[in-house]
Amino acid sequence: MSSLEEMKKQVFEANMALVGHGLVILTWGNVSGIMRAEGIVVIKPSGVPYDEMKAEDMVAIDLDGNKVEGKLKPSSDTATHLVLYKAFKEIGGVAHTHSTHGAAWAQAGMSIPLTGTTHADYFSDAIPCTRDMTQAEIEGEFEKTTGDVIVETFGNRNPMHIPGVLVKNHAPFTWGKSPAEAVRNSVVLEEVAKMGAIAHSLNPNLSMNDHLTRKHFERKHGPNAYYGQG
Amino acid sequence: MSSLEEMKKQVFEANMALVGHGLVILTWGNVSGIMRAEGIVVIKPSGVPYDEMKAEDMVAIDLDGNKVEGKLKPSSDTATHLVLYKAFKEIGGVAHTHSTHGAAWAQAGMSIPLTGTTHADYFSDAIPCTRDMTQAEIEGEFEKTTGDVIVETFGNRNPMHIPGVLVKNHAPFTWGKSPAEAVRNSVVLEEVAKMGAIAHSLNPNLSMNDHLTRKHFERKHGPNAYYGQG
Amino acid sequence: MSSLEEMKKQVFEANMALVGHGLVILTWGNVSGIMRAEGIVVIKPSGVPYDEMKAEDMVAIDLDGNKVEGKLKPSSDTATHLVLYKAFKEIGGVAHTHSTHGAAWAQAGMSIPLTGTTHADYFSDAIPCTRDMTQAEIEGEFEKTTGDVIVETFGNRNPMHIPGVLVKNHAPFTWGKSPAEAVRNSVVLEEVAKMGAIAHSLNPNLSMNDHLTRKHFERKHGPNAYYGQG
Amino acid sequence: MSSLEEMKKQVFEANMALVGHGLVILTWGNVSGIMRAEGIVVIKPSGVPYDEMKAEDMVAIDLDGNKVEGKLKPSSDTATHLVLYKAFKEIGGVAHTHSTHGAAWAQAGMSIPLTGTTHADYFSDAIPCTRDMTQAEIEGEFEKTTGDVIVETFGNRNPMHIPGVLVKNHAPFTWGKSPAEAVRNSVVLEEVAKMGAIAHSLNPNLSMNDHLTRKHFERKHGPNAYYGQG
Repeated sequence: MSSLEEMKKQVFEANMALVGHGLVILTWGNVSGIMRAEGIVVIKPSGVPYDEMKAEDMVAIDLDGNKVEGKLKPSSDTATHLVLYKAFKEIGGVAHTHSTHGAAWAQAGMSIPLTGTTHADYFSDAIPCTRDMTQAEIEGEFEKTTGDVIVETFGNRNPMHIPGVLVKNHAPFTWGKSPAEAVRNSVVLEEVAKMGAIAHSLNPNLSMNDHLTRKHFERKHGPNAYYGQG
Repeated sequence: MSSLEEMKKQVFEANMALVGHGLVILTWGNVSGIMRAEGIVVIKPSGVPYDEMKAEDMVAIDLDGNKVEGKLKPSSDTATHLVLYKAFKEIGGVAHTHSTHGAAWAQAGMSIPLTGTTHADYFSDAIPCTRDMTQAEIEGEFEKTTGDVIVETFGNRNPMHIPGVLVKNHAPFTWGKSPAEAVRNSVVLEEVAKMGAIAHSLNPNLSMNDHLTRKHFERKHGPNAYYGQG
Repeated sequence: MSSLEEMKKQVFEANMALVGHGLVILTWGNVSGIMRAEGIVVIKPSGVPYDEMKAEDMVAIDLDGNKVEGKLKPSSDTATHLVLYKAFKEIGGVAHTHSTHGAAWAQAGMSIPLTGTTHADYFSDAIPCTRDMTQAEIEGEFEKTTGDVIVETFGNRNPMHIPGVLVKNHAPFTWGKSPAEAVRNSVVLEEVAKMGAIAHSLNPNLSMNDHLTRKHFERKHGPNAYYGQG
Repeated sequence: MSSLEEMKKQVFEANMALVGHGLVILTWGNVSGIMRAEGIVVIKPSGVPYDEMKAEDMVAIDLDGNKVEGKLKPSSDTATHLVLYKAFKEIGGVAHTHSTHGAAWAQAGMSIPLTGTTHADYFSDAIPCTRDMTQAEIEGEFEKTTGDVIVETFGNRNPMHIPGVLVKNHAPFTWGKSPAEAVRNSVVLEEVAKMGAIAHSLNPNLSMNDHLTRKHFERKHGPNAYYGQG
């Protein structure tokens, strides 16, 4: 199998995993992957039902959005993915869902505060919510600008330490070293968003010790990480 | 297959899809479809368990509610469906559920505010909640008047741009170009109602930029829509 | 099959339906049925795992709680069921669950207010919550007194029009003409409790028009009921 | 089968039961069991996907954490389990999950108050939440100190009467006479946490009669317990 075929298979399986994890309904959601050496991004086609979709339906484009291979139109969110790949050089996959609790925090216009180790195991700080876009931004190149505003929101934050964002009044984008890791981070974001919403209803003044945050993140991701089989 | 048989099959499958999407329990819920040229409406029979129901059990009536074909009594909500078909000339299907979060907003007597793009992708504005009915309306032709009050609520709103409503203290009705699209809009309404309830618990002062609303709705439904395979 | 065997089968199936509807976990919950002519009550055995339970494990007792047939000990809640059968002469089955939202309202010590037609279709008024029991009542014949306090709570209310109750700090009991109808009312109570909790979080000042309540209840249960196939 | 093989099988099945009960996702969660006579603890390996895990992957260690048998690294939470086994002499199994509602209460930094008989049937009092750990504790032997702080929280409480705890900003640990009973207590804790969160949203001033608490706990666990087949 060529590396393009292999990437199409990976991206297809990552898209199907969104369904398996209950993160998308209807035709919502999309996952992409990038072949950095070739400068090729593979992404879900737009609006195709998951139960009819096949690996060969995945669409290959270059980083300017020109189609390289595939019969179908790429996801309508493609331009957002491309901005993320250009700005965040270490990422290998991007996922976008309208998962229920992640979308609810985005609709509330609130970042998900870091108040638990479940969150700290994967994200080293709050999952930020982007600012409102202006009329000009919305009426211009909307999907590209959505990506630009995500990158602006990150500023000096390390996207490998906070592998996800809430787009205000919209929903989450997550990323990772591969399409599968981007999906895993969507799973974690939704669970953390759910725990956070319930915790907020119990106690709106949540807080968590910074030392505990750092410990949990580094236990899994620091130079001396000791979680897993190493 | 005659067009009536075909419509009965479509309506049956749309009713079963309500169960598959987890929107109804017991014998709750009903979907209908209309054959505009023939003036025939096909609807679920009243109170029949979903696991015993067959396509041939669907009941065909005319727009005045006279039975055209079928052995069973039509849904007790039939008169509401008929008012909607008469008032909203472009719709081809109507669905009614007591889906949990949609019904909760109706019990709260509140319209579902437009605060996210998931909502804006299918509904161009808030999903309105009807007014209280009077004693005379309730004790008169209740189901017909339920439809009249929905139509009154819509006033100048475009029912194809806001394909659903909450009947106060009751539950949602949705519609679309076909029975299947009416069901899809029930799925979206329930998901939007759930996201909205969680967002409301996080932040009761929700808002969304009008430009973003318009952008998302038009991306899928405007003259220059670019979502899907076109 | 003798009528006792038939009743054991009905009660067994009703108990298994609690599991199927997601209303019980572990060994929680119990359903019974009564053969009025014979004065025999058939009930689930105490603490037997659902996946090992068989129809022949159901226990038959008389209205004083003496065992008539069966090898196992009857449910620890048996005495509550017996009080209900003696006080509410028209009921043929009783169900008890710790269903999540029903139990939550009971823990909140609040009746479930009637604010929607889903509720009014099966219960003609609020689902009442019992009073606190005294120390003497709790330390005496606890399960029997639980039944007495339910009956006291009902006073002049018609138990066939309000086929369920919340025992304060405990959970729901429901009943109906048969074990299956008691289970159906547990399903409705849990759904109504869930809708009510979400509606309460959206708007704590809920209300519903009395005329609408009466209309919906009578549409299904009044002398001129017109729901279902008649 | 040797007793070590038998314990590995029990611990493996208890870990898989966490998945079956919906209490863990990804590689989260872990269960262990102890062979008291031999001083051997058997625990889940760290970070192994549940769908690839086999009974033979379970790791055997002594109470000082030295590996006795097994190819894989034990769970990163092993040191917490060992502290619990040393301090709580009657327990035979420990379970740790990030179950949604249990974790939410831990993130809220709140004990789960005893407000229902579902809770009282298994826990004789509130499920306590531990205190914040200090910087030194977090940066030192973190997992061991997590166990120490649980033991400190218990003080004079009887761990067999309150078989679980919330670690602040983290999640629940539960225990029992066996690995299976520890898992059962995780199931109960999550359900009680869910009921408690909903009850709290309905009425933040919850309370429950002490006599009722004692009655329910003793009905199942007291010297005159009468629940189950005895």
